[in-house]
Amino acid sequence: MKWLTGETSEILTALNDNIQRTQENNQEVEEQVRQIIQQVIQNGDQALREYSKKFDQVELKDLFITKETIELGFQRVEKDVIAALEAAKENIVSYHQKQKQYDFMDTEKSGVLRGQLVLPLARVGVYVPGGTAAYPSSVLMNVLPAKIAGVKEIIMITPPSANGISDVILAAAKIAGVDKIFQIGGAQGIAALAYGTETVPKVDKIVGPGNIYVATAKKQVFGAVGIDMIAGPSEIGILADVAANPTYIAADLLSQAEHDTLARAILVTNSVKLAEEVEKEIYQQLQTLPRKEIAEKAIENHGLIILASTVEAMFTIMNEIAPEHLEVQLADPISYLHEIKNAGSIFLGEYASEPVGDYFSGTNHVLPTSGTAKFYSPLGVYDFVKYSQVTYYTKEALAQAKDAITLLARKEGLEAHARAVECRFD
Amino acid sequence: MKWLTGETSEILTALNDNIQRTQENNQEVEEQVRQIIQQVIQNGDQALREYSKKFDQVELKDLFITKETIELGFQRVEKDVIAALEAAKENIVSYHQKQKQYDFMDTEKSGVLRGQLVLPLARVGVYVPGGTAAYPSSVLMNVLPAKIAGVKEIIMITPPSANGISDVILAAAKIAGVDKIFQIGGAQGIAALAYGTETVPKVDKIVGPGNIYVATAKKQVFGAVGIDMIAGPSEIGILADVAANPTYIAADLLSQAEHDTLARAILVTNSVKLAEEVEKEIYQQLQTLPRKEIAEKAIENHGLIILASTVEAMFTIMNEIAPEHLEVQLADPISYLHEIKNAGSIFLGEYASEPVGDYFSGTNHVLPTSGTAKFYSPLGVYDFVKYSQVTYYTKEALAQAKDAITLLARKEGLEAHARAVECRFD
Repeated sequence: MKWLTGETSEILTALNDNIQRTQENNQEVEEQVRQIIQQVIQNGDQALREYSKKFDQVELKDLFITKETIELGFQRVEKDVIAALEAAKENIVSYHQKQKQYDFMDTEKSGVLRGQLVLPLARVGVYVPGGTAAYPSSVLMNVLPAKIAGVKEIIMITPPSANGISDVILAAAKIAGVDKIFQIGGAQGIAALAYGTETVPKVDKIVGPGNIYVATAKKQVFGAVGIDMIAGPSEIGILADVAANPTYIAADLLSQAEHDTLARAILVTNSVKLAEEVEKEIYQQLQTLPRKEIAEKAIENHGLIILASTVEAMFTIMNEIAPEHLEVQLADPISYLHEIKNAGSIFLGEYASEPVGDYFSGTNHVLPTSGTAKFYSPLGVYDFVKYSQVTYYTKEALAQAKDAITLLARKEGLEAHARAVECRFD
Repeated sequence: MKWLTGETSEILTALNDNIQRTQENNQEVEEQVRQIIQQVIQNGDQALREYSKKFDQVELKDLFITKETIELGFQRVEKDVIAALEAAKENIVSYHQKQKQYDFMDTEKSGVLRGQLVLPLARVGVYVPGGTAAYPSSVLMNVLPAKIAGVKEIIMITPPSANGISDVILAAAKIAGVDKIFQIGGAQGIAALAYGTETVPKVDKIVGPGNIYVATAKKQVFGAVGIDMIAGPSEIGILADVAANPTYIAADLLSQAEHDTLARAILVTNSVKLAEEVEKEIYQQLQTLPRKEIAEKAIENHGLIILASTVEAMFTIMNEIAPEHLEVQLADPISYLHEIKNAGSIFLGEYASEPVGDYFSGTNHVLPTSGTAKFYSPLGVYDFVKYSQVTYYTKEALAQAKDAITLLARKEGLEAHARAVECRFD
């Protein structure tokens, strides 16, 4: 596991070199994705079937998953798993309801009314990855905020497989309230959602994680539809001092590391003693992990222990890292809230272990990765609404505004703008 | 001017054919921009100077515009223009302050605290186009919401010119409270903001309109930094019935048409009489417009008069168009607010002429174009903040959640997630 030590400025420089965040452009993938999107625009469902055969080795009869298939999948899932998903749903709903925003209307000036409407998107597409692992929790996290926002139709797509869609994914879709499911994956799935086909309705926004083809396709259709952020590897940053429990910290770091060999687990501390204990614990706990191979690679290649000189320096460094998940394992953690400038989801104290947020607390687990917490937010209800401004002026109010408007319009060389106001007074 | 008539469904189909919104990929521009960005990443300021020489025909001594230069520009601007900009600023500030959002904290469950922090971005870059026309109003519209959000540093860039930066742009930057100005344009300017150079600080988000090189560069750096929406040509949609004033409607349609030969002016009405009068008025008013040539081309190639059978059909059609600007010139316009599903900025009644919003009312004039009002919002304070989730659990609360968390984690094959929670109870 790599250690960074020294002056804060040296650590920040080393971090910048270590965390290479320049976006890699993979031109081959980009070109392939461009062609796939063009094919789907031109040939619709037929293109989707051909790509399913080619990429998923599945000859599709129906793209659409029927209500019966969903219900059968739901029935096959263990009752306690259903109950846990229902409990998670309840928490996700109660948290996200607090994010709801409301219209406002401003009547401060005589004869003038200015306002803002909060309107839900009409139709949203959710991409759910296929492959060996199924993540029903992600279905809840992507769908429920859209439901709370008031989105009328939620379309889920997921890659076809010879064995059919995973039961627990179908169950999660039912619990979350997905309206329609289609079995289509990859860039072709994103293209279908963005432009529509005979079978798949065009959506207004696409959310959900995927592999490099999915991510590249989302970037390419951006503008024709809205997209959520492009997700990178998972990240955790833990701030801890000598009083913290190394066992818990190691376990939490490993819970990120097991996601992906590119996952990044970072401890920032002012205690050499703690750092050493955590490192020892990590290698001990690693031994018995089923996903040992993945977690070990992640820890070896992307794990970091950073020794800062003071608690203040710890926060400076962590704010530069801008981690997706941030644990504050310091005494009286809430007293440090004000010091946090960049983090997707903050976990306070030794019992707010990060997996609580992945599965249960109700905060969203779709979070800004790779330092994008500097400018992106967790997925939320705000991602599924848009605002409309409203303006009303009486003739008297317009008369008072007229001179300023016509002066500025003419200064910008836009005479028709000036005349549009003046003609009201001819 | 083109007319669309018939059944609502026929009109919607014709609209889809008429308004081709598939994004054109210009691979040559994309490749050029990719190279420019790489050069700026590798060679920093030196690359910026070389591109200024090549593209702007300016040999730059300093990239940075000094406070003295800004002050001199400000002093040279007519006093009444300064006063009009100050008045506009006051309205923009009072409107956007209503958009401010606040932290929340939820303590519904015993031993659990869940919250959301609203944190400003640290540093934002604003692109201001150069060229013959200067748009000081756009400087206010891009900068002031960032100020209100609490952004600490606002960097403006604008292309260099042999005559220096326009005085009124410098004045608007001063009034809006820009922190630093650099004279750099094009894709190289966007690259400098996204990755930083010796002189230009790296920002967290880039906003502001620009030509195809600027727009393509913004799309390419998206992910390394945040960006605002990619702006297309200006659009206005007007809903009006037989009682509306054709002179006002024609003038408002022309105020959009004069922006750009690609600008789109659309009247949707249920009155043939009004439609004919508006068309006649448009050609009459066109004759004396300084920007007649531009406006005429826009009206001829992209102007639309749509005859709907009912008021309900008028709204159905307009919601499909999702115009950037929407005027409702119907009696008792506020009673129709609920019918509007997609529009950037809504103007109610015959005195809320659209230029009021461009220059004075205080609502933002940076708006979603080309139908993107279906999923995008006007530029606002919300574009310059991001949210952080906060979670705190006591040991007792975690004990109650433990079974659901570990069950779901193991169902997803993520054993280390389960153990991270369980180790707290060993």
